[in-house]
Amino acid sequence: MKAYHFDSFNDALAGLRLRDDPMPVPGPGEVVVRMRATSLNYRDLLAAAGQLPGVRPGLIPLSDGAGEVVAIGDGVHRVGPGDRVVAAFNQSWIAGRPELEFMRDMLGGTVDGVLAEYVKLDQQGLERVPDYLSHEEAASLPCAAVTAWSALHCGLPLLPGHTVLVQGSGGVSIFALQLAKSFGCRVIATTSSDAKAVRLRALGADAVVNYRETPEWGAAVRALTGGRGVDRIVEVGGPGTLEQSISCTAFNSQIALVGFVGGLGATINPRLLMRSGLSTHSIAVGSRGDLARLLAAMDATRLRPVIDRVFAFAQATDAYRHLQAQQHLGKVVISVD
Amino acid sequence: MKAYHFDSFNDALAGLRLRDDPMPVPGPGEVVVRMRATSLNYRDLLAAAGQLPGVRPGLIPLSDGAGEVVAIGDGVHRVGPGDRVVAAFNQSWIAGRPELEFMRDMLGGTVDGVLAEYVKLDQQGLERVPDYLSHEEAASLPCAAVTAWSALHCGLPLLPGHTVLVQGSGGVSIFALQLAKSFGCRVIATTSSDAKAVRLRALGADAVVNYRETPEWGAAVRALTGGRGVDRIVEVGGPGTLEQSISCTAFNSQIALVGFVGGLGATINPRLLMRSGLSTHSIAVGSRGDLARLLAAMDATRLRPVIDRVFAFAQATDAYRHLQAQQHLGKVVISVD
Amino acid sequence: MKAYHFDSFNDALAGLRLRDDPMPVPGPGEVVVRMRATSLNYRDLLAAAGQLPGVRPGLIPLSDGAGEVVAIGDGVHRVGPGDRVVAAFNQSWIAGRPELEFMRDMLGGTVDGVLAEYVKLDQQGLERVPDYLSHEEAASLPCAAVTAWSALHCGLPLLPGHTVLVQGSGGVSIFALQLAKSFGCRVIATTSSDAKAVRLRALGADAVVNYRETPEWGAAVRALTGGRGVDRIVEVGGPGTLEQSISCTAFNSQIALVGFVGGLGATINPRLLMRSGLSTHSIAVGSRGDLARLLAAMDATRLRPVIDRVFAFAQATDAYRHLQAQQHLGKVVISVD
Amino acid sequence: MKAYHFDSFNDALAGLRLRDDPMPVPGPGEVVVRMRATSLNYRDLLAAAGQLPGVRPGLIPLSDGAGEVVAIGDGVHRVGPGDRVVAAFNQSWIAGRPELEFMRDMLGGTVDGVLAEYVKLDQQGLERVPDYLSHEEAASLPCAAVTAWSALHCGLPLLPGHTVLVQGSGGVSIFALQLAKSFGCRVIATTSSDAKAVRLRALGADAVVNYRETPEWGAAVRALTGGRGVDRIVEVGGPGTLEQSISCTAFNSQIALVGFVGGLGATINPRLLMRSGLSTHSIAVGSRGDLARLLAAMDATRLRPVIDRVFAFAQATDAYRHLQAQQHLGKVVISVD
Repeated sequence: MKAYHFDSFNDALAGLRLRDDPMPVPGPGEVVVRMRATSLNYRDLLAAAGQLPGVRPGLIPLSDGAGEVVAIGDGVHRVGPGDRVVAAFNQSWIAGRPELEFMRDMLGGTVDGVLAEYVKLDQQGLERVPDYLSHEEAASLPCAAVTAWSALHCGLPLLPGHTVLVQGSGGVSIFALQLAKSFGCRVIATTSSDAKAVRLRALGADAVVNYRETPEWGAAVRALTGGRGVDRIVEVGGPGTLEQSISCTAFNSQIALVGFVGGLGATINPRLLMRSGLSTHSIAVGSRGDLARLLAAMDATRLRPVIDRVFAFAQATDAYRHLQAQQHLGKVVISVD
Repeated sequence: MKAYHFDSFNDALAGLRLRDDPMPVPGPGEVVVRMRATSLNYRDLLAAAGQLPGVRPGLIPLSDGAGEVVAIGDGVHRVGPGDRVVAAFNQSWIAGRPELEFMRDMLGGTVDGVLAEYVKLDQQGLERVPDYLSHEEAASLPCAAVTAWSALHCGLPLLPGHTVLVQGSGGVSIFALQLAKSFGCRVIATTSSDAKAVRLRALGADAVVNYRETPEWGAAVRALTGGRGVDRIVEVGGPGTLEQSISCTAFNSQIALVGFVGGLGATINPRLLMRSGLSTHSIAVGSRGDLARLLAAMDATRLRPVIDRVFAFAQATDAYRHLQAQQHLGKVVISVD
Repeated sequence: MKAYHFDSFNDALAGLRLRDDPMPVPGPGEVVVRMRATSLNYRDLLAAAGQLPGVRPGLIPLSDGAGEVVAIGDGVHRVGPGDRVVAAFNQSWIAGRPELEFMRDMLGGTVDGVLAEYVKLDQQGLERVPDYLSHEEAASLPCAAVTAWSALHCGLPLLPGHTVLVQGSGGVSIFALQLAKSFGCRVIATTSSDAKAVRLRALGADAVVNYRETPEWGAAVRALTGGRGVDRIVEVGGPGTLEQSISCTAFNSQIALVGFVGGLGATINPRLLMRSGLSTHSIAVGSRGDLARLLAAMDATRLRPVIDRVFAFAQATDAYRHLQAQQHLGKVVISVD
Repeated sequence: MKAYHFDSFNDALAGLRLRDDPMPVPGPGEVVVRMRATSLNYRDLLAAAGQLPGVRPGLIPLSDGAGEVVAIGDGVHRVGPGDRVVAAFNQSWIAGRPELEFMRDMLGGTVDGVLAEYVKLDQQGLERVPDYLSHEEAASLPCAAVTAWSALHCGLPLLPGHTVLVQGSGGVSIFALQLAKSFGCRVIATTSSDAKAVRLRALGADAVVNYRETPEWGAAVRALTGGRGVDRIVEVGGPGTLEQSISCTAFNSQIALVGFVGGLGATINPRLLMRSGLSTHSIAVGSRGDLARLLAAMDATRLRPVIDRVFAFAQATDAYRHLQAQQHLGKVVISVD
């Protein structure tokens, strides 16, 4: 069976090679999944460049994959052959809050990932996929959608009627927009282009602010809330972003810190964090239980993931380059057929 | 100005009289509201019969009313003349959990209510009404819809994808159905008639069980969840109801105890309460803050209250009799014009 | 190595036999523990009588055991040889809320327990023991103390200054008393004998009510709180107990339902559950994470478990009979030497 | 009766004048308190300098005061003449989370404070004082101790066994140390002097780090936790402090942001906030309900406030200067006799 491996790491993806590997055999408590689709996240670019902690040469990349169970080992009771399943990002984080020891087994990072025809996983690291989702859609969920879910549900409970701010058009932001809308929230989105603004509105955004045209966009967002401010921010950030975000928060708001995609240079005055009732929350993707709750919510609301483009298995490096180009809106998927 | 008073209490409503009262004058921190609509709840039948704790002869009935501010006293800053407002059920419960001292001022119970042309209230006992709601719709909210809101949000956080069970077609149950659907939940409803089942489905119920036809409806509800059980029950009760409810709960479910409309005779074995992760929660309507959050959620989702029938101010006793007859679905409203 | 097995089940313990078993060998992720002490719980009497769901002939009894790691399998990283450890009650419940699938592996119930010289366990089912605790003390914790911990922390957060009611002198009640006191709470205890009342006061109880002398003890407990009521009840129950318990609760109180040791016959009117802000919570022991948090709290406060009596390994049946006699205060331990 | 007023504002306190004011008369719902003691907080230095938002010439200073009720207006039911009471910091924040409209009436800031022989307050802005506390001790609580309480209880629940970091020897830090210890937590304190370290240990600190001697004190604190990190930090800050604080946090830790006493100049890289499970929480003193819960906890644990020094009413400006000198440990009190 075929699998991609990083023979070496660099930005040019020269080390990403397709190999013929032996067919995996499930041990006790393990299952083998015929992968049908995988998806990429920003972290996979860091992994390719060798900048993700824990990666080592030979690694099979990618955390996000969905397919069918084809073989099970002794004592497997959670799934059976033929079940459509999706892998959990942190294989050993089953439930509850993050703990250091739950962070040992991140697919495509500290352990081999899913960019392969067949993948062996512990039965505890899977969830069943609702019927209405395709393999490509299911494969788009484990990192970005679970992160969006965790971001929306951090700190004080999210309530319908809350206003949520999402930033840009990456995977996490689009999922956060869709999930918040299906939850009865108002959503304000920021973007750098009017073309993307049109698409964000079509996905349900109640208002969109162009942060290129309005560098002080915090004031614009606050104005859109009648001066009250937003209740929750899914911060994917960049230089100066957090400062603008804080400036448009309401009392008792939550800022979910998801990443700092756009840059690392800026600093903030910590006094800004003292707005009344404000809290910030570091988001670490989520547990298998979070994945299960996300899938239940999606099943009930029939939410459809936004897939930017699907690449063939043989064109995996093109998929990476497409993500690098940062022109996508939604998820970049690699089919495994 | 005209106001209804209970000169005496009995089931026949003979003591409910319309009087000419002096126009109220706002003191410091007080406002006078020109009432436009009021609504009835089951408790108002108890009040009419003199069975509600704290009622005394002369009482102006009803807790639920909406109208316009026409005069304000010194130091009033929360609202101004012309504002459309709705009164909070517990006038001195501003925020936080229920406390004994927050239960002193229940409109139409321990203090005068809103079935009058003009009503004087403390500025702390009001919230502004979203533009999209009529006076009749706003007047339907303070008791039943806030109770439904509190019931849905008790205990563990309500999540989209959860399954909620509502019972019958009273005000609380209908609001709970609508709010849960707007929140991305699945809703199963019980009812006694196929005609009402049709209407409950039209309001969004994913499934309806006829408890007359299926006395062991707990098993039927569980079957509708694929055996897993429901996550949350808004229990409005009756003999034997709680036992059936408990029998269809999932792990970690919440039962919100709202009332026991249908009867008081039945007892349960407390061992039933020990299903894994189950919790029960007593619901006491809610605070002004809960009313504010409900209004924000309704404004965001444009939820329309279900009004069964609107009676003219002069026909107030007919409205009581209509509620007594128990044939309504949704709220019974009295216009004040 | 020697291990006790139930060849058959009956109240007279005739089926409990000591056998010579082969030495266990750890597989991948597994460890072998040289047991040093075990303890009994009420559930172990049910198991002995064949009344505990999931038990089958041949079962090694008891859930609670502590000892030293003597061998580890491949991939074991959580503990090493020589570590003093204690087993978790539900071997597959790592963290988070209870789920059906976390209830598969209850030691001494659905899977073999710890009444043996050597026991093989998954590395995920253990926690390290603080130095200050003896093996006997550590062995007293997994079921009773974790249950007490879960009971104190269910529902609204437990706060110093809260008043906690504990009932009788079983393992859970004594741990709840001690933990609540170390947490800055007031504790009221009920008991059937003045001799036990003296001991409960010595363990920190601020007040004790004799429920034999005062059958309407709810009123007596309420009087001890100046009429306000208690904030939290660790309900271990019996006929009529829950009704008395509810009668002495304050606003916003929690009743943790732990068991109904004393009898199953009584029923309650569910309207009693509607006291303002009251919630009931079913307690299912707890997760490995709860055990870890308990151990951390005990280590910080140097809380010493109350051990009623220690029996030798050869006298295991005497230990069962001592528990059956219900004259103990604290835990009944079996040494494994 | 005598009261201090700020005729004007400046650091030298020249504008603080003692005047003869008319005796206050309680209106409906109001009470008059004969003040017996008041205490100072860092914010009172800002108020004196005219730097506190909302202050205006003529202001009676100070938020923290305790005394006896001497007169009550119509409808007062929460307290009666002779009751020993303490004023709540935010007079209109009764319960629940902070809201903009609850921040209108901060004693000694936006409204007149308590540095007077007699003070008129709304009955909703008071709590009764436990018998064991003196007036001076009660007067030390409303700002600093409630802030410490809120800081300890923000975010995830505080548990016994948690490790708490407190900084320096100001009022909030000392209360946080004492409260955390009474709650079964470990406490690590930082200080600038070995003399203060001795006193902090005497108050219960398990370990003390001198941040003058150890500028990279974050690593020292982490080492004191066996590498695991602290669970909660009461951050009173200064340049570079937050960065060190973050560096010694455990998974799932909370940083309560209380103030930035020592300086405002430093900035931080927001990526530091992304440590796993970390959250930051802005603390805004607390509600009357928080004051009530604090008093209940203190009453149960007999915690004694640490009073650095008591000044006579006539020497109020000396009390301000003593606080300015920053050599105190615990609270600076002004007696009112």
